[in-house]
Amino acid sequence: MGRVTTRVPATRFVVDEPVGELHGELVAEGAAGPRVSVRPRPDTLAVEEPLEIRVHGEVVAVTMRTPGDDFDLTIGFLLTEGVVAAADDVLGLMHCLDEGEDGSPTYNVVDVTLRAGAGSAEALASATRSTYTTSSCGVCGKAGIDAIRTRLPHDVAADPVRVRAADLVRMPDRLREHQGAFDRTGGVHAAGLFTAAGEVLLVREDVGRHNAVDKVLGAAAREGLLPLAGHVLQVSGRASFELTQKAAMAGVPVLSAVSAPSSLAVDLARDVGLTLAAFVRPPRFTAYSRPDRIDTGEPAGHPTAQPTAQPTHETPGG
Amino acid sequence: MGRVTTRVPATRFVVDEPVGELHGELVAEGAAGPRVSVRPRPDTLAVEEPLEIRVHGEVVAVTMRTPGDDFDLTIGFLLTEGVVAAADDVLGLMHCLDEGEDGSPTYNVVDVTLRAGAGSAEALASATRSTYTTSSCGVCGKAGIDAIRTRLPHDVAADPVRVRAADLVRMPDRLREHQGAFDRTGGVHAAGLFTAAGEVLLVREDVGRHNAVDKVLGAAAREGLLPLAGHVLQVSGRASFELTQKAAMAGVPVLSAVSAPSSLAVDLARDVGLTLAAFVRPPRFTAYSRPDRIDTGEPAGHPTAQPTAQPTHETPGG
Repeated sequence: MGRVTTRVPATRFVVDEPVGELHGELVAEGAAGPRVSVRPRPDTLAVEEPLEIRVHGEVVAVTMRTPGDDFDLTIGFLLTEGVVAAADDVLGLMHCLDEGEDGSPTYNVVDVTLRAGAGSAEALASATRSTYTTSSCGVCGKAGIDAIRTRLPHDVAADPVRVRAADLVRMPDRLREHQGAFDRTGGVHAAGLFTAAGEVLLVREDVGRHNAVDKVLGAAAREGLLPLAGHVLQVSGRASFELTQKAAMAGVPVLSAVSAPSSLAVDLARDVGLTLAAFVRPPRFTAYSRPDRIDTGEPAGHPTAQPTAQPTHETPGG
Repeated sequence: MGRVTTRVPATRFVVDEPVGELHGELVAEGAAGPRVSVRPRPDTLAVEEPLEIRVHGEVVAVTMRTPGDDFDLTIGFLLTEGVVAAADDVLGLMHCLDEGEDGSPTYNVVDVTLRAGAGSAEALASATRSTYTTSSCGVCGKAGIDAIRTRLPHDVAADPVRVRAADLVRMPDRLREHQGAFDRTGGVHAAGLFTAAGEVLLVREDVGRHNAVDKVLGAAAREGLLPLAGHVLQVSGRASFELTQKAAMAGVPVLSAVSAPSSLAVDLARDVGLTLAAFVRPPRFTAYSRPDRIDTGEPAGHPTAQPTAQPTHETPGG
């Protein structure tokens, strides 16, 4: 409980380009082409786990959250959804001792007891259909991941694609060049479908990260491109569990994100054999799973990065 | 249809502090205290409107999206939720001609016809409970806003609070100082509750923006602070419709966001009389509604900013 961050093994790639080609630091002067340095670099991620909120035993919502302050989250949710009018409408809150696969409690279920007469049945029904609820994953993250893996229509793990590090590191800028609404508003997420060689195929924008991804995958499907074997999906923001799931469902072997991945996104990517690159900001990025698909330009037979081990967990500050 | 951005009236505040107090540009040398410049500045926002996805007339999901590419979004959603296995499982897609309050079609409903025998009933039921679905708003954004206003337990519009521009512009940095997980992971959102004088009361973090807000509002409720009249809610990311709704439900009169607001967030803030400040980045920020609550240090009787008019809409690129 209260595990806010987790430490995972990861692989850091730094692409040194000739001066002028990249706007990052660490630019090698006079180099003829990109040189890529690769090193293992454990990273600290924000933990993302599902919280199931129940009222009198009935599931109202499942939200992907960072563990901790679960009672605050539950009361805040019930208040802002209009289910209760005040904190003292809630008589009791308890963590159900549901068990994870290792038999220890997950603390991922909170059951709420309302004061007699408190609680709006209408708002409760409405909240049950609300933003928060996710079906994509059960209460236990790991069990949810197993369920997803068995449901995947495509064998993402078997995809033999390789992507040049120098191509991958440029994808966020290429995505940005194709964005229309973003530059005007600063408030829009984008998702882009790329070939493994770094060519832009499709770009879609939306105020919602999930919508941008659904739009680009839906457009690809309508063009007959599914499954998206051999392709890269680049997103403008973070890599969450749900975006990783969407990529895997469409058969995408490489997901690249400008910002941080969540712990559960990394868990899912490892389990389904999807390459997850994040913090993709020239001249560098970090691969959290299947770094063997990243081509550093080394001669064949000298793989520069090995699949990393399973994540370990830490409990900072208790 | 296809309205991706919208132009709204807004008010730009720039706070000039003595050298060294702020790390922004536009710093006035040798000034004794903050000087605040205020000017009207129309702004372009990303449009956020609900899209209701139906399969054979049954509602599967409502998602807050940017209009456009609705068929791509719909097919991408059905594919990545596992409802259909391929694009050709979808026989037909049509926009329902539901009407907005002015009698013209909103194009906010898409109905899907599946090929006979296509579609997983289990996945359909599961998707119906999925992430996307929001109950907070009907199909028509405006009608949804009206419904929310009548449901609000507190009269946010009547809150007489005033916040000094110099205090508001510093809140994102103060929020950041209180964040623990963010600095380690770069992947966590934060929400902070402030007094009108700029004092931090509560800070919560989460991988989800909505969760961070629910946590801080729930914590405030448990401390007996609701309704949060006279307070400011500062969020680390964008101001969406749903965050604005949550603030209003808890009685918060001022919502301040580091990044952009959506069009529907501004509509809601105007309608319920909540002050919405966004792009709060020293030395400046923009107020999209009720700028009269921002205190610029001018003598009483010289209000520096007037409530702005209703937004107008544009249709760029058709």
